Amino acid sequence: MSVPPSLERLVTELARLPGVGQKTAQRLAFALLKEDPSRARALAQAVLDVKDKVRFCEECFGYSEQPRCAICLDARRDASLLCVVEQPNDIYVIERSAVFRGRYHVLMGCISPLDGIGPDQLKVRELIARVERAPVQEVIVATNPSIPGEATALHLGQVLSGKVGRITRLARGMPVGAHLEFTDDITLNQAFTGRQSFGR
Amino acid sequence: MSVPPSLERLVTELARLPGVGQKTAQRLAFALLKEDPSRARALAQAVLDVKDKVRFCEECFGYSEQPRCAICLDARRDASLLCVVEQPNDIYVIERSAVFRGRYHVLMGCISPLDGIGPDQLKVRELIARVERAPVQEVIVATNPSIPGEATALHLGQVLSGKVGRITRLARGMPVGAHLEFTDDITLNQAFTGRQSFGR
Repeated sequence: MSVPPSLERLVTELARLPGVGQKTAQRLAFALLKEDPSRARALAQAVLDVKDKVRFCEECFGYSEQPRCAICLDARRDASLLCVVEQPNDIYVIERSAVFRGRYHVLMGCISPLDGIGPDQLKVRELIARVERAPVQEVIVATNPSIPGEATALHLGQVLSGKVGRITRLARGMPVGAHLEFTDDITLNQAFTGRQSFGR
Repeated sequence: MSVPPSLERLVTELARLPGVGQKTAQRLAFALLKEDPSRARALAQAVLDVKDKVRFCEECFGYSEQPRCAICLDARRDASLLCVVEQPNDIYVIERSAVFRGRYHVLMGCISPLDGIGPDQLKVRELIARVERAPVQEVIVATNPSIPGEATALHLGQVLSGKVGRITRLARGMPVGAHLEFTDDITLNQAFTGRQSFGR
């Protein structure tokens, strides 16, 4: 292809991003080429800024531009509820749903022996220190409903036992809007095991 | 959401790109945040470079970093064949298929009275000047098989008539791999009208 070199380079850089294939990268590059120069500059600056300014909150390891993140600093958030997630982005998924008003703790991954990741590679020690420093009523383990996520939850259950009021795990079952017909066996199993009474 | 401001801004900038929704923008922003700083810098630089360096070829109006693009400068390309496309990106689609070894002319759009775009808003005058300056055996009109694309093709057929050896239009019909069952009426109509003999 006789694409100008700088265009080729932009396509290459965009195609490095996860979930962006060659065709999407090309589409984005052509779109950027058509954009107003000021918009393109704003995007480039935003990319640089995010790398420059965003670090991990020293308390919860979520993303923050300050030593402590907005959630950890927010006095209206319930400090006696701690939601443990695998990744910083998981915080925003939960925040979007506005279902939780406590604080977070990011593990920075999950236990995965095959990848050489055990509790010591995660922020588990920091979690224990945190609940020992300030008493917590409930730790909600919101790791993914996957094998490594479950393994991580089990481990947390053990190490936090006796240190916090209550340890819970997000419910597993059928997602809202799903069809029984297309639900996989493991999910169905979980949905049966976790079934709840209703009516009277 | 308590997203750090610089992260929020990156999401906003990314979500401005066509075909990038809020969720994709978030996914990309989080991916960039995890990237090596040098990679993020490379992407930012690539965005700036592409806007700085890429301009339109003064001959064919394709993308180029030089006054004339690589295709117009390539002496091995057949200058007697001219393929007319709507957008600069269309060139790369055709180049990828390696089906055409002539040169291009980009119209920079197509005739669309509702949007106030007539021949004068397109590079039609430049196309006429070009074929008058250097004789051309065949002009292949490769505008989109849409109403505006067809209107543009018809107009080019009129203004180029007598000025070039032959004016052709890309074949319309069923795309390879399509099923008759799912083919729309207009395409089927075109496929019948354009049917070709085979066998003996």
